[in-house]
Amino acid sequence: MELGEAIYSLLADIFPICRSVAGEGVRETLRRLQREIALTIHEVPSGTQVFDWTVPREWTIRDAYIRNEAGERVVDFQACNLHVVNHSAPIRAILPLGELRQHIFTLPEQPDRIPYRKSAYDEAWGFCMAHERLMALPDGLYEAVIDSELGEGSLSYGEFYHAGASEEEVLLSAHICHPSLANDNCSGLALLTLLAKALSGHKTRYSYRFVFAPGTIGALAWLARNEAQTGKVRHGLVVSCVGDGGGPTYKKSRRGSAFIDRAASHVLRYATPAPAILDFSPYGYDERQYGSPGFNLPVGLFQRSLFGSFAEYHTSADNLDFVRPEHLASSYSMLLAILDVIENNFTPQSTMMKGERQLGRHGLYIGGDGSPTTQAANMAMLWVLNLADGQHTLLDIAERANMPFADLLEVARRLQEHGLLEA
Amino acid sequence: MELGEAIYSLLADIFPICRSVAGEGVRETLRRLQREIALTIHEVPSGTQVFDWTVPREWTIRDAYIRNEAGERVVDFQACNLHVVNHSAPIRAILPLGELRQHIFTLPEQPDRIPYRKSAYDEAWGFCMAHERLMALPDGLYEAVIDSELGEGSLSYGEFYHAGASEEEVLLSAHICHPSLANDNCSGLALLTLLAKALSGHKTRYSYRFVFAPGTIGALAWLARNEAQTGKVRHGLVVSCVGDGGGPTYKKSRRGSAFIDRAASHVLRYATPAPAILDFSPYGYDERQYGSPGFNLPVGLFQRSLFGSFAEYHTSADNLDFVRPEHLASSYSMLLAILDVIENNFTPQSTMMKGERQLGRHGLYIGGDGSPTTQAANMAMLWVLNLADGQHTLLDIAERANMPFADLLEVARRLQEHGLLEA
Amino acid sequence: MELGEAIYSLLADIFPICRSVAGEGVRETLRRLQREIALTIHEVPSGTQVFDWTVPREWTIRDAYIRNEAGERVVDFQACNLHVVNHSAPIRAILPLGELRQHIFTLPEQPDRIPYRKSAYDEAWGFCMAHERLMALPDGLYEAVIDSELGEGSLSYGEFYHAGASEEEVLLSAHICHPSLANDNCSGLALLTLLAKALSGHKTRYSYRFVFAPGTIGALAWLARNEAQTGKVRHGLVVSCVGDGGGPTYKKSRRGSAFIDRAASHVLRYATPAPAILDFSPYGYDERQYGSPGFNLPVGLFQRSLFGSFAEYHTSADNLDFVRPEHLASSYSMLLAILDVIENNFTPQSTMMKGERQLGRHGLYIGGDGSPTTQAANMAMLWVLNLADGQHTLLDIAERANMPFADLLEVARRLQEHGLLEA
Repeated sequence: MELGEAIYSLLADIFPICRSVAGEGVRETLRRLQREIALTIHEVPSGTQVFDWTVPREWTIRDAYIRNEAGERVVDFQACNLHVVNHSAPIRAILPLGELRQHIFTLPEQPDRIPYRKSAYDEAWGFCMAHERLMALPDGLYEAVIDSELGEGSLSYGEFYHAGASEEEVLLSAHICHPSLANDNCSGLALLTLLAKALSGHKTRYSYRFVFAPGTIGALAWLARNEAQTGKVRHGLVVSCVGDGGGPTYKKSRRGSAFIDRAASHVLRYATPAPAILDFSPYGYDERQYGSPGFNLPVGLFQRSLFGSFAEYHTSADNLDFVRPEHLASSYSMLLAILDVIENNFTPQSTMMKGERQLGRHGLYIGGDGSPTTQAANMAMLWVLNLADGQHTLLDIAERANMPFADLLEVARRLQEHGLLEA
Repeated sequence: MELGEAIYSLLADIFPICRSVAGEGVRETLRRLQREIALTIHEVPSGTQVFDWTVPREWTIRDAYIRNEAGERVVDFQACNLHVVNHSAPIRAILPLGELRQHIFTLPEQPDRIPYRKSAYDEAWGFCMAHERLMALPDGLYEAVIDSELGEGSLSYGEFYHAGASEEEVLLSAHICHPSLANDNCSGLALLTLLAKALSGHKTRYSYRFVFAPGTIGALAWLARNEAQTGKVRHGLVVSCVGDGGGPTYKKSRRGSAFIDRAASHVLRYATPAPAILDFSPYGYDERQYGSPGFNLPVGLFQRSLFGSFAEYHTSADNLDFVRPEHLASSYSMLLAILDVIENNFTPQSTMMKGERQLGRHGLYIGGDGSPTTQAANMAMLWVLNLADGQHTLLDIAERANMPFADLLEVARRLQEHGLLEA
Repeated sequence: MELGEAIYSLLADIFPICRSVAGEGVRETLRRLQREIALTIHEVPSGTQVFDWTVPREWTIRDAYIRNEAGERVVDFQACNLHVVNHSAPIRAILPLGELRQHIFTLPEQPDRIPYRKSAYDEAWGFCMAHERLMALPDGLYEAVIDSELGEGSLSYGEFYHAGASEEEVLLSAHICHPSLANDNCSGLALLTLLAKALSGHKTRYSYRFVFAPGTIGALAWLARNEAQTGKVRHGLVVSCVGDGGGPTYKKSRRGSAFIDRAASHVLRYATPAPAILDFSPYGYDERQYGSPGFNLPVGLFQRSLFGSFAEYHTSADNLDFVRPEHLASSYSMLLAILDVIENNFTPQSTMMKGERQLGRHGLYIGGDGSPTTQAANMAMLWVLNLADGQHTLLDIAERANMPFADLLEVARRLQEHGLLEA
């Protein structure tokens, strides 16, 4: 099965689960991912203080609906888990429509879509529904039932570690707290899980740490528990919304010119004519936490369409039709290309610094047709050799030559084989 | 009375006075300003050497006119003091028109306006008049009378000092040598005088020094007399032409990236969609002297329309109709906003550097309507907290967040009150 | 005789000679240049190893043709030396057209032009001809004769040294290995020769070294023989294709911001509205060798049309009609202007750093008409004086003032004469 299909299939598998900041939904999702990779599940008890935040209670949701006087469910959690405000307090009441409306959220500008809304840190209850459906409800009494529970328990997050030659780490992080939203972030979870699975079979230079945690509080919990180890994180990416056809988007780490920022910008420039390369801002996903001043980790955000910028964002339209296997596959390729830069960058050293090399003598000159391709291949060799002075990494060379890192890496390896370069 | 009106009123008061580089005109103007603030008047004797320049003689002007054969004044200093070349030598002669013309200056391209012209450093005499009036003069003999005197005396300049908490100074300087030109520079003199008056009632971080001096030689005289003290000048602005509706214009100090350059550029960018932010050049007003290499003070130039770029510049059209209270008021606001950055910039330090703050827990989250205004208010808090690492001043943060300094200052103060920040 | 004509005349003189990488053609050319300047001719024996390259054998070419069955020369080296592949191995054979074609090179897209092609480092034989002539050849047998010899001997290069006040050198280099191509590079050879001749009569600050050497291997031979001395090269230019009307083009040295890069960019910006200022790349002429990482000399490339970018490049159309005396003259002027910056740049020091100078008092103020020219002349004085703080060279000042170096140099000299500046 093709890779894009495989990611899509895993994504579709976890899509129906009703996740929230803490509770069975996250645990069920993590268990599903454990079928693919040896994920460790960590539990952080409710009430634990993590920096400025407190781990919330677990949310259990069994059922939720609004029933009209005829006993028909006009809003039904069983049909779509976005119908209940995520982490909602329980309710069981009969109310006139006018009063009930104060607890119903809609999107008047997208009247056929159910919004996604959450209430993780206050005790409140509510429903979400399509605006046109709400408008169609006749006055009268309605029975509002949210059969939920907010109780002591724990917040769960998953962690997968792939040991490389070095203890220095690449951190890859995805949020796991959203219910049935396909792009945000079943896509990120599925993609990273299959990336982790693929990595397991390979020797790598860096060690890789995957964190699947509820947004904000989950990332903070991971940071709090691993505070002494965060110095090992040399490069990192938060990954979300990677199943749609927009973008790609890269939002830089707080540092702004970290290696990950250069590598991701470089790769995306060759992946698409006009990628969105954005400066850091303290709003978005968990790059905010990794990039809080006390950590300031070099962690950027990789997405297709930027969060908040597409109409399906945080609505019922972010469903299994919105994400496509081919987009997941291309997101995977871009991510891999970024990691390839991280894994393979080095400082080549020419074995003869004086004068140009006579490529023909070494059987390296690509002659003949003078086509753009052979010209580029020769230029790549000339660039690598010219800048292989021990002062430039391969990414430095790629940036200056305005050529893809992958091409120069291939060239550098051939030059190494022929003894013209050493590392 | 509204501030713009108050500035306009003072401006209108000093407008009629016939100032020149040295003489009673300047003194009379300074005395008028003394009614508002405790201005010290300094006198520098004629002939005093200041650096490469010599203080010129005082100019006394009693009357000046050109009379035709019928005894009618066809040019009359009493009607407009621009009619006589400023600092003109005396003359009393009867001449044929052809000969007289060699001493008459006009603006052929603005035939209804009288030019402003001066002759401070050579002994010469002359008149200025509207070109169309000159063209209309019939041939014949004319009596040219300039009842002036160039004599030993002194050059006068005014100085006002407001002591702040620190001995470090902000220098605010306006030239006082132009006769009846409203924008250039009655506007600057009136605006700075009322600013000085307003400051007197306040505690400030910096000390403020106001210098009202004749252009070039006056600024040089101040520099020469205060040479040892110039090191205290941390920030400065030359202020002129602040009553018209153009610009705003900020011309950078010679240093190019002094704090005043950043602060003024920042403020003007939020005051107007396309402010003119100009690099330093050694032509203009007294920023040239403050920015001569031996001083190199961080002093920029603040204007509305750039000198020399508006048709009324140095003509009789630079009159009380050309300047408006509302422009004076908005210039005052911009200047104040620049001083606010200087006064209030500081390096905030977050009291918890790890992880984002839970704003809601501190009663700081501005919830609800999701409007651009509330979003911006929340973003402002996130930016300040994210960069409050002891490495960034508030202006650094404002530049990176691309948000107005004033907004971030308000936010920083609220965060301080809630204990999330300290200075 | 006007300079452009003189350069053209020398160019036309050497144009017919059949040069190659090594052999009599180069030697004959160098001897011709010796009639103008005291050129030293160096010989490097065949087989000598220079860095990664080996000096090739000498090529002797006596005659070459293709004769049809009627005994007519359908391709004739006597008519144009581009007809034989440069450095071709000898051949004497009767072949059917189909077989012969594998040794014939044409330009199908420029069917009336003969391409220039060389084979310096493999043993091969071949002819070049106009595509339309080849197409017109009837099938049949042809006699192919290349009466050449590849034998032991030496590679020749010429060197001219002009001693200046300093041992620090300006390197000017032109390739001499191309046969009858007028722009590439008879133009460079002729122009530099007459520049060298002109310099001989002058005292200069720098010493000047001219190298006329076969491309790549010749420059490498010079580098190898003068390795210990290359540190003296402070500035340098490779000069080629300076007789056409395109460009001008300046390709920066590998360093990217060497003084020569700034000087050449500055001069060309005032020579033409949109000069091509290109970043270094490791493809082109001998700036590649001078800019190999082990040398990294500050040597750029000066051209009119960029190599490879004009249709006549490496074809028989690069002939005496393609280059014009007026273009040679303007190239010479630009080159001289660049050298003028190198020769005359200095760090002026104002003799009075405090306050602006009173130019009138020193008889320096250019008064009166207020025309752009006199304004610029006054601004030039103000800029030089303002930045003559011992921290800025004249080129720094020219860049910041956005004024031509030559104008500021004139101004600086006048200021020096009046005692306002010292070096």
